[in-house]
Amino acid sequence: MPAIEIDNIRISDDGSSVVIIDQTLLPGETKFIELSSVSEMYGAIVELKVRGAPAIGIFAAYALYVLAVRSEAKDYGSFREEMMKHSALLDYARPTAVNLGKQLKRMEKVIDSLADTSLPTIINAMREEAISIHNEDIEMCRLISEYGLTLVGDGYGIMTHCNAGPLATSRYGTALGPIIMGYERGMRLSAYICETRPLLQGARLTAFELDKAGVDCTLICDNMASIVMSEGKINAVFAGCDRVARNGDVANKVGTSGLAILAKHYDIPFYIFGPSTTIDMDCASGKDIEIELRKPEEIKEMFFEKPMAPSNVKCYNPSFDVTSRELITAIVTEKGIFRTNGDKEFIF
Amino acid sequence: MPAIEIDNIRISDDGSSVVIIDQTLLPGETKFIELSSVSEMYGAIVELKVRGAPAIGIFAAYALYVLAVRSEAKDYGSFREEMMKHSALLDYARPTAVNLGKQLKRMEKVIDSLADTSLPTIINAMREEAISIHNEDIEMCRLISEYGLTLVGDGYGIMTHCNAGPLATSRYGTALGPIIMGYERGMRLSAYICETRPLLQGARLTAFELDKAGVDCTLICDNMASIVMSEGKINAVFAGCDRVARNGDVANKVGTSGLAILAKHYDIPFYIFGPSTTIDMDCASGKDIEIELRKPEEIKEMFFEKPMAPSNVKCYNPSFDVTSRELITAIVTEKGIFRTNGDKEFIF
Repeated sequence: MPAIEIDNIRISDDGSSVVIIDQTLLPGETKFIELSSVSEMYGAIVELKVRGAPAIGIFAAYALYVLAVRSEAKDYGSFREEMMKHSALLDYARPTAVNLGKQLKRMEKVIDSLADTSLPTIINAMREEAISIHNEDIEMCRLISEYGLTLVGDGYGIMTHCNAGPLATSRYGTALGPIIMGYERGMRLSAYICETRPLLQGARLTAFELDKAGVDCTLICDNMASIVMSEGKINAVFAGCDRVARNGDVANKVGTSGLAILAKHYDIPFYIFGPSTTIDMDCASGKDIEIELRKPEEIKEMFFEKPMAPSNVKCYNPSFDVTSRELITAIVTEKGIFRTNGDKEFIF
Repeated sequence: MPAIEIDNIRISDDGSSVVIIDQTLLPGETKFIELSSVSEMYGAIVELKVRGAPAIGIFAAYALYVLAVRSEAKDYGSFREEMMKHSALLDYARPTAVNLGKQLKRMEKVIDSLADTSLPTIINAMREEAISIHNEDIEMCRLISEYGLTLVGDGYGIMTHCNAGPLATSRYGTALGPIIMGYERGMRLSAYICETRPLLQGARLTAFELDKAGVDCTLICDNMASIVMSEGKINAVFAGCDRVARNGDVANKVGTSGLAILAKHYDIPFYIFGPSTTIDMDCASGKDIEIELRKPEEIKEMFFEKPMAPSNVKCYNPSFDVTSRELITAIVTEKGIFRTNGDKEFIF
């Protein structure tokens, strides 16, 4: 049994709405909201009330089922047309993650394959398909966590970015799975959580989940990753993924590529976790992945009310860091431009 | 004449207080505050009302002069003792930057060298020394900016971190100097400003200064540096420094070392700017530099009121980035652990 058992996405008992935790209110408030119209559902994805590539996929499948239940269409043709419109709108909500489109396609396939049956039969099959998608995700997360655990040693410090935990998926999560599972099995692990600007999914969600699970964790600002790695505190970096290209290039929350470059510099292994459905074999390399651009207010204004992290979470807050001379092209003072060649010392 | 002419640090006309812009209220409010007691002065440094390594040095020199003016000591012995106590307290306010201690030592030297004269003579000499320190900084910034300009080409994109502009120094600033000076001379430059968590000196101060100076600038979150560099938008990274070790290792605002590693990865030159007084020849390498640790609330709570940046500043807000396969140790899915060797493709 996992330490965290949050039912972050489910259908209401009568099937007339999808019930989710509003992730934008965490960690201050754990509030469940019911969504029954397609515009509410679309808005929930855009506004990140539900987020995390696998979670969005599960949500969209349930959403389409709920919209089918609520449909007033009387015949297959108009039902199908209505569903395809809803599906296209939901798919449009966020472009980068592959899961959203993939799970919607699975739901569409159910509709198409049962064209010769009745609407109640189709709607029932859609319910089963959505539940399958959810259950498969739970099982995938368990397997991913078990595999991930083989990459972790007792006493490890693990850095993670954004949120690839239970809220982003189901149960254990992907990148957080091995950390939570390792803790449950008695391993002494320390997690270093990058806060993940602009919307602070690391501070608000990952710190919330790992803290709840009992894992020793420390929150840092994104620009502190280098100093923490330089201090030898990190044995591995674990991150999730939104879309993996055929060649292995990975799209994930902005900042992931920077962490990977830092990890390489400090000779720290860098692991990506995700269901195999995240691998998009139609996409040759990262160049073919559309990167979502979001509104400037997310950077210029702070959307979330205080607190921005669980109040008891440890923080590491160094004000400065040291840049090694071999990384510096030149130092400019009022006396001129001082250069060095690689490892040679600066002569001031 | 520089585009920005903010008198960020000065003595009041009667010499009884130091007048500074409260940098914690920017960009929302440009408020000058008068400080006359040593505890107010100490607090202003700790709380970053005045900040930037050279600016703190100038401020501390003026502060000691004001405290001398206000001293009620009747003889040299008690005057000296009082001044040394004040100097030690001010020096204690922030440990990493070298300028604070260096400029206080210059002021102490004036007191020691004039032991045989009268207190009014000493106090007058302290005023002249503080003004010299300030004027030297203005001249140093001008020279640094001129040297820096030789590293810039027309059309350059320059990334900068934290704030090494007029507010952190005097007039042109150090790392921002070549950008402002280049703009004044008609060069077409674009600045990419890292917001610099936790206290957002990039968003609040650098964006404020460059925007005021008329420079084309774009604000990003710290974790977006990698994607911006990967898109070919950056020709050079310019940063300031708080202490430079003899071997060239540089202590500067946390995140600087990470930017340098990213710049090296993307083959972008990385330049450090600062007065030669920032070079600490008593310090062999970065290992000998004390890194200030600050309180966790700076990370967990947002200290500054909205807006966090000038309202009209451009922002670039990609939600994801792509991590190249050669940076990834393994990709873990429910089907197992997929590895690659360097440039070899992942076989999924």
